[in-house]
Amino acid sequence: MAVHRQTFSIKTKGEVHVIDISDRVSKVVRDSGLREGIGCIFTPHTTCAIVANEFEPGLMETDLPAALERIVPKGSGRGHDHAGEANGHSHLRAAVLGPSLAFPFSDGRPALGTWQQIVFVELDTQPRTREVVVQLVGE
Amino acid sequence: MAVHRQTFSIKTKGEVHVIDISDRVSKVVRDSGLREGIGCIFTPHTTCAIVANEFEPGLMETDLPAALERIVPKGSGRGHDHAGEANGHSHLRAAVLGPSLAFPFSDGRPALGTWQQIVFVELDTQPRTREVVVQLVGE
Amino acid sequence: MAVHRQTFSIKTKGEVHVIDISDRVSKVVRDSGLREGIGCIFTPHTTCAIVANEFEPGLMETDLPAALERIVPKGSGRGHDHAGEANGHSHLRAAVLGPSLAFPFSDGRPALGTWQQIVFVELDTQPRTREVVVQLVGE
Repeated sequence: MAVHRQTFSIKTKGEVHVIDISDRVSKVVRDSGLREGIGCIFTPHTTCAIVANEFEPGLMETDLPAALERIVPKGSGRGHDHAGEANGHSHLRAAVLGPSLAFPFSDGRPALGTWQQIVFVELDTQPRTREVVVQLVGE
Repeated sequence: MAVHRQTFSIKTKGEVHVIDISDRVSKVVRDSGLREGIGCIFTPHTTCAIVANEFEPGLMETDLPAALERIVPKGSGRGHDHAGEANGHSHLRAAVLGPSLAFPFSDGRPALGTWQQIVFVELDTQPRTREVVVQLVGE
Repeated sequence: MAVHRQTFSIKTKGEVHVIDISDRVSKVVRDSGLREGIGCIFTPHTTCAIVANEFEPGLMETDLPAALERIVPKGSGRGHDHAGEANGHSHLRAAVLGPSLAFPFSDGRPALGTWQQIVFVELDTQPRTREVVVQLVGE
């Protein structure tokens, strides 16, 4: 049994930029030498999220932004906006989607489904450089 | 310390079918022989979700479907619908609820509350056969 | 490699009371003596949630309650309300936000971002005493 930790950075284009990070996560699992265990994909920021779903452009680039606008409209984070940047809604959307994904890995690979990708979702209004932590525990 | 992995299948009836899988998850923990650790319940599909809440029919069979219809209405996934099946909204609902649940287990059992069940939520429009992975790391 | 488990209680004031529990979680990691691994913060209740975001009053005490009211309005859990307490919407909100957060820890501390706190969210209508479980696996 061992712990393996690896981080990587991504550059995002602002609201709502979706990036398929499945290959990078798979590479971390491969690099670790671990075969079986549990992983945690975690982004240490408060205006982005990790989602596991199908990385299909219509879904990710059209439907997801529209759904987020319906669920948490721009301007709905005014309490926070008064404190500085006008990104209160970005925080709220991040709270709904979540910055963390626990996943099983097996046979040296994330045990994802055929149509299931790991997607980084930038929710902030500005382009950013983001960090993703992949932490594995297993054997 | 060891890793234990077990999967099981469930047959669902389509949108929105909720199934209490607590007993099956408890059985995996029991079968593993592990006493203390962290588990991950994961479904490798993109139109269903894992939720931990009270499996009470009024809540699960009336309120949850109505809430999902309010949050992500049918037809709100048109970008994806154009790519094939008319289940874009199922993907969006799955992205909001999530396919993964991390949980502690202790004394050989999932450390759930008295009223807390583990619920598989089918969000797709058609009946399906679904896989659930339960991966444990502990001692 | 080892497992460490610790629980603590918090007293809440009812709907929507947010409490920053970052220090208590950090203390559990410190107390464990573990340096690297994965943790799971889990609340064994069905009308509260664990969120990781910025604990800024405008966001947490004004925007989050307003967002929850928009996403799952009071009174939208009537199927469950008929079964007893009028807190169906609290259950639905808890299902959307989730009772569990997986996180990496490194160097003996939760690997959170600078602006990222761990927030307990009371969603029930009444003050309650709540339990939080922090379970760690690592070395």
